[in-house]
Amino acid sequence: MVVLGVPIDSGTGGRPGARFGPAAIREASALIAGNLYHVGLETEVFEHLRIVDVGDVPVTPGQHERNLDAAEKWARELMSVTDRVVVLGGDHSVLLPVLRAVADKHGPVSFVHWDAHADTWDGGPEHLLTHATAVRRVIEEGLTNQVFQIGLRGYGPSRETFAWAGEHGVEHWTMMDVDEAGLTDIVQQVIASVTGKVYISIDIDVLDPSYAPGTGTPEPGGLTSRELLAGIRDLARNTDVVGLDVVEVAPPYDHADVTALVANRCVLEFLSATAQRKAAG
Amino acid sequence: MVVLGVPIDSGTGGRPGARFGPAAIREASALIAGNLYHVGLETEVFEHLRIVDVGDVPVTPGQHERNLDAAEKWARELMSVTDRVVVLGGDHSVLLPVLRAVADKHGPVSFVHWDAHADTWDGGPEHLLTHATAVRRVIEEGLTNQVFQIGLRGYGPSRETFAWAGEHGVEHWTMMDVDEAGLTDIVQQVIASVTGKVYISIDIDVLDPSYAPGTGTPEPGGLTSRELLAGIRDLARNTDVVGLDVVEVAPPYDHADVTALVANRCVLEFLSATAQRKAAG
Amino acid sequence: MVVLGVPIDSGTGGRPGARFGPAAIREASALIAGNLYHVGLETEVFEHLRIVDVGDVPVTPGQHERNLDAAEKWARELMSVTDRVVVLGGDHSVLLPVLRAVADKHGPVSFVHWDAHADTWDGGPEHLLTHATAVRRVIEEGLTNQVFQIGLRGYGPSRETFAWAGEHGVEHWTMMDVDEAGLTDIVQQVIASVTGKVYISIDIDVLDPSYAPGTGTPEPGGLTSRELLAGIRDLARNTDVVGLDVVEVAPPYDHADVTALVANRCVLEFLSATAQRKAAG
Amino acid sequence: MVVLGVPIDSGTGGRPGARFGPAAIREASALIAGNLYHVGLETEVFEHLRIVDVGDVPVTPGQHERNLDAAEKWARELMSVTDRVVVLGGDHSVLLPVLRAVADKHGPVSFVHWDAHADTWDGGPEHLLTHATAVRRVIEEGLTNQVFQIGLRGYGPSRETFAWAGEHGVEHWTMMDVDEAGLTDIVQQVIASVTGKVYISIDIDVLDPSYAPGTGTPEPGGLTSRELLAGIRDLARNTDVVGLDVVEVAPPYDHADVTALVANRCVLEFLSATAQRKAAG
Amino acid sequence: MVVLGVPIDSGTGGRPGARFGPAAIREASALIAGNLYHVGLETEVFEHLRIVDVGDVPVTPGQHERNLDAAEKWARELMSVTDRVVVLGGDHSVLLPVLRAVADKHGPVSFVHWDAHADTWDGGPEHLLTHATAVRRVIEEGLTNQVFQIGLRGYGPSRETFAWAGEHGVEHWTMMDVDEAGLTDIVQQVIASVTGKVYISIDIDVLDPSYAPGTGTPEPGGLTSRELLAGIRDLARNTDVVGLDVVEVAPPYDHADVTALVANRCVLEFLSATAQRKAAG
Amino acid sequence: MVVLGVPIDSGTGGRPGARFGPAAIREASALIAGNLYHVGLETEVFEHLRIVDVGDVPVTPGQHERNLDAAEKWARELMSVTDRVVVLGGDHSVLLPVLRAVADKHGPVSFVHWDAHADTWDGGPEHLLTHATAVRRVIEEGLTNQVFQIGLRGYGPSRETFAWAGEHGVEHWTMMDVDEAGLTDIVQQVIASVTGKVYISIDIDVLDPSYAPGTGTPEPGGLTSRELLAGIRDLARNTDVVGLDVVEVAPPYDHADVTALVANRCVLEFLSATAQRKAAG
Repeated sequence: MVVLGVPIDSGTGGRPGARFGPAAIREASALIAGNLYHVGLETEVFEHLRIVDVGDVPVTPGQHERNLDAAEKWARELMSVTDRVVVLGGDHSVLLPVLRAVADKHGPVSFVHWDAHADTWDGGPEHLLTHATAVRRVIEEGLTNQVFQIGLRGYGPSRETFAWAGEHGVEHWTMMDVDEAGLTDIVQQVIASVTGKVYISIDIDVLDPSYAPGTGTPEPGGLTSRELLAGIRDLARNTDVVGLDVVEVAPPYDHADVTALVANRCVLEFLSATAQRKAAG
Repeated sequence: MVVLGVPIDSGTGGRPGARFGPAAIREASALIAGNLYHVGLETEVFEHLRIVDVGDVPVTPGQHERNLDAAEKWARELMSVTDRVVVLGGDHSVLLPVLRAVADKHGPVSFVHWDAHADTWDGGPEHLLTHATAVRRVIEEGLTNQVFQIGLRGYGPSRETFAWAGEHGVEHWTMMDVDEAGLTDIVQQVIASVTGKVYISIDIDVLDPSYAPGTGTPEPGGLTSRELLAGIRDLARNTDVVGLDVVEVAPPYDHADVTALVANRCVLEFLSATAQRKAAG
Repeated sequence: MVVLGVPIDSGTGGRPGARFGPAAIREASALIAGNLYHVGLETEVFEHLRIVDVGDVPVTPGQHERNLDAAEKWARELMSVTDRVVVLGGDHSVLLPVLRAVADKHGPVSFVHWDAHADTWDGGPEHLLTHATAVRRVIEEGLTNQVFQIGLRGYGPSRETFAWAGEHGVEHWTMMDVDEAGLTDIVQQVIASVTGKVYISIDIDVLDPSYAPGTGTPEPGGLTSRELLAGIRDLARNTDVVGLDVVEVAPPYDHADVTALVANRCVLEFLSATAQRKAAG
Repeated sequence: MVVLGVPIDSGTGGRPGARFGPAAIREASALIAGNLYHVGLETEVFEHLRIVDVGDVPVTPGQHERNLDAAEKWARELMSVTDRVVVLGGDHSVLLPVLRAVADKHGPVSFVHWDAHADTWDGGPEHLLTHATAVRRVIEEGLTNQVFQIGLRGYGPSRETFAWAGEHGVEHWTMMDVDEAGLTDIVQQVIASVTGKVYISIDIDVLDPSYAPGTGTPEPGGLTSRELLAGIRDLARNTDVVGLDVVEVAPPYDHADVTALVANRCVLEFLSATAQRKAAG
Repeated sequence: MVVLGVPIDSGTGGRPGARFGPAAIREASALIAGNLYHVGLETEVFEHLRIVDVGDVPVTPGQHERNLDAAEKWARELMSVTDRVVVLGGDHSVLLPVLRAVADKHGPVSFVHWDAHADTWDGGPEHLLTHATAVRRVIEEGLTNQVFQIGLRGYGPSRETFAWAGEHGVEHWTMMDVDEAGLTDIVQQVIASVTGKVYISIDIDVLDPSYAPGTGTPEPGGLTSRELLAGIRDLARNTDVVGLDVVEVAPPYDHADVTALVANRCVLEFLSATAQRKAAG
Repeated sequence: MVVLGVPIDSGTGGRPGARFGPAAIREASALIAGNLYHVGLETEVFEHLRIVDVGDVPVTPGQHERNLDAAEKWARELMSVTDRVVVLGGDHSVLLPVLRAVADKHGPVSFVHWDAHADTWDGGPEHLLTHATAVRRVIEEGLTNQVFQIGLRGYGPSRETFAWAGEHGVEHWTMMDVDEAGLTDIVQQVIASVTGKVYISIDIDVLDPSYAPGTGTPEPGGLTSRELLAGIRDLARNTDVVGLDVVEVAPPYDHADVTALVANRCVLEFLSATAQRKAAG
């Protein structure tokens, strides 16, 4: 298991700052004392997993495409020596280069997308890659064979864009669906539907702004941290997750590190559940 | 549909700052990209509603009564050209002048009051109008024929004041009631009881301080943003709402605009559900 | 009923600041207007309880043991003139001196411990008393005859430490348990199990960081304020609580006083429910 | 020497919050350890002065005039038992009621006004009393026989208003004058001109916003804290100061209490220099 | 006189957020009451100048070059209808497109550069345009015939880069020079040296971080607000300034708007002094 | 040259948080791009100095004396392999263990103490070592043969304590002295008086709170960052400085890292001037 930071935020049209996301997410481990024994799962992560943090992709100010190319190069390099990757963003545009590398290794993935926003805007005639178009790009490139979106709410993209997504096999559950069905059931549906290897992308704004104020485009009415952590846990215990990213953590808008902490714990929950799955054989 | 700001906070005995509420609530639309398509309701607001924001009532420092008079004059003016109004507060004392104008047009309303506090303090021998007495004043003036209060908690007013309210037909559900019955059921009871046109007043402190720190008199143990948004949605889809206000947003105490954002989304949820109701004929 | 502040934070290995906890918790009463009538319990606290706030234990910078000794001396003094005490921390190491005084008066207590962390680290060969070892120390000294821990999550202490706790009769419910069983049921189990007088210790980090950012070692995925307030209420109405502390409120990391407010309301909820219990005879 | 707080901010057209000024200014004494020995003046304040803090004038939300009347009544009461008063604001409108009481006792005063703004707006046909008109009101009422304004800058009031002030004998030094002549020389000029008893009013926004961000209408390009403290010191050592106020401290906009601290030290500098003057006989 | 905002920060390698600079700088006029009479210069700006604010250049996330092209196009358009422009940044890379437009109209300018950093890094083999290379680019393109840099301090660029600058006629004064000679004298030297039309570029980080915390690459030991305002005033009164920009205001790192306020006042000081110069004929 | 962090704050009676000082001071180098060429001194630090940062002394919560012992042990270890040390605090109590190690190597030092407070409180009958008594302890132990204190202001310790200091040869300059004589002259006096090797201790609260809000006991009326940096520069260029510490940086109270930045630059200024002195031979 390799951890990689991609400290860019040139793809966001909202509040910037995700460039400092990787540092903040790592730093949020500092308050953990000593070992990494998950109290609920009764599992010591380091007994079962070897984890290497290779640091951040080097970036250049103002060079959005070049930085994304560097991220792709690094991700491909890593996938040549490991099977599973954890990516710390950065804004959501980092999804495309990472998923290219993952899909190149594992083939098109079952893509589980936690987000307030569908990120399927088309990006105009030039098909720009931004935080709002990244999911459209990965679908267009055939990097996924299934897309599950959980937590959508708020406003946009348009009815036409959702129609496009539906035609491309995207399933989504809005927060109104979560209110009605409960997150546990929705995650069980996803698990039951998954056909292959899984990639999980977590835009931290899937959480309500009370849990994650430090993000680029906060949208009220989101998940609680308990729902999100349980969802990650269930996915990691019941499917074969080959990659996970946590993106859109913007420390300049955070308070008392609460957003960085919950983003950190999303990663640890994934590692802990993966460790338990491995322990269970 | 007309939107009006009332930038006063001279009626609050708590933390001031609601004078900047209208500006902050409007500004919180800035992170929405392009259209106003409600993802859960599958409704594009502007396809069904014409909305005009007429700006703020002009105010003078230190002139509480004069400013409330100006608010009433503006509200009456608007009700002469429109049927429905959205008011952005300001502290809760803006309720009285607005409801005078609304009731003058539509007759006494079914009043749905979301708040941590009952706001039925009597205000002493002079019957002062403050953020804590506004609901008593509207009841005394006969502007309501039904009052439903949701979200009460904390401390005060006194047992005697609640007795007075009961005698005047006020029904209320505390957060202990919400914990027991669930908000969905309570809102259904309100909908079933409503006899005429509805006015909704949302004191943002009905939310827990984690969701709305930027307010004058925060009270722990409140609603989640999902509960409140769903409550507004259900009311707007199932009753004839002629007015809505969102008050007590105090930006100096906000962080990363989370309070302004959820206040903004309360308004948009009302507009979206109203649009859908209209679309449905 | 006596209230005592213990303004020390020399026992925390995390973010300091709990020395300012007592002042902030008291200050958070300021926004309550006039009386202390609990809206949900329909009880006026001061009709049934006499409450004296004796201020803070005097402390000396850098003198951890001496300060804890002073806290013990004060607590013993108070228990000589009263039956029940409310303690405002300070970090969690204040638990030991206080519980010594309480157990000296009432005998070993049924200990209900609300916390993200088990606080049963052993503290090395010297058996240090810190915020992370306090519960171990009280168990070792025989100050409890039952220990119930609610809200555990995150990472650590080790499997061995939990085994030690199990051998010493500690029962615990993690947040995964809370998600599954519901907090109401867990509290009912505790109430049903309690055999004697009860002492409640509330580490404010049992709440999710969204509700309590101002604390030393925040851990995502915690209780909501409604769950915690209901839990305190149910315990105080159904068992004989002789002492309660609220610890680890760290104002330098708070925002808009939300943490101080909810800590304050934990105390008031205890007082209100105790008043109601007394009123009911 | 009596200290009185006037916790109102209904007179400000800028950022509110000065209602919490008196509490914050007092609280800022907390970091002083033990005694009150002024290191530079080599004077122990309490050896020479008896100081009583009588707390705050009681106020009612939304009742600007009534609150100012209460302030006047309290100030008159105090001036009947003491010769000298220190007032903690509150917004600048508190000047008028306080100066009425002071002038009633001592006759018209030499008024030394530290402020970014002239506060001589006329306030319209109704002669309103706000934070921007208070100085005009005290001149109109004949409460001063000399007015010295130091620190003016920024924009407004109009050329006509300055002409009016000039006709009424107001002398002023802008920050451009301070840059040229130096504050020390200007204060010497004031001292040389003073003909009777002196009243000092310090709007904390006379300081640059870097020194005093927590205020209602900050204006860049202001005094440093060293200039202001030296100015107060020189005035108090060389003239007969019978009253001093510090106003417009708005804690919601403060950071790490820097504004409250410097406001507190303005009061202490006045007390220390007065003590030294008294010691010197 | 035309005002134009360029809301981009894709060129900064430090803390982002300057995209919100134009909005914050404009908003900081809100606390000015009524007129625009400069108290020190005794000049009413609007009596002498016609000022049009044309809003912001439209930008696209992640498209650094495209956005700079748009800025150049807008700047050229404006210079076709006006002689003088005020630009609100944005990061310092906006300098190049703006100066191209200005120099196209007026010929190479005398460039007065207020900054903590020389911004003459070469940007690697590709000659990238970033906040750190902008000044090198404008020199290379021949847009200046004189360059004066005031306020340099801290670390970098290299000795070689300074040598390059010296060879290209750049004069600079470090903060050590300011400490020794005084800012007034340095500005007089610049005024005496200027040979033609002047363009002033103000990186707000020329101020000490205490005055301007809300910026991308703060460097301690900088100018005071009084020094900077006086410098702008003297230049505008004594030379023919055809353009001025204020860049690198990053609101996410600001507190109580102090940085936005002083940036706003830099613009107003320029306008006021220009108005006075025009009034004087 | 060796750099050592001492992350303790158990010695402060004010606002805690200095335990995070070393991390914050180091982190504040992040915004420096590439090289370490001092623009004013025209010196590249790494051309002349070899600098090793050995990290932080390991500490245990609540163990003040033990932690100070560890600091002393580490400092002695380092002085056995190097001649010069830079210490990053931590609260001011770290001075004693460090100076023991330095004096053991170099003999009693000429001690230049920058601070708002004299830190010569006696600490009661037990001679406690706290942030307020550290300087008394080093004098009592004979670790200094000269003590120069610069920047004193505010209140305390007592007249008697200053008398004690005077008897022990301590010279001090208050901020009133700085205002009168100018800091440059005072530093020249110190340089002229120095008889041997020099140790510099910088309590960051010697700066005005506007420059250093993030500290434990801020005191208004302090030095500017330019004065302090120049003072360090002059001392390092003209005397033989064998050790320097920067203490009392408390990040929880900082904003936008301004305090950490100026603390970092104090260290860099010392290194740069030392490099230049060495370059000059």
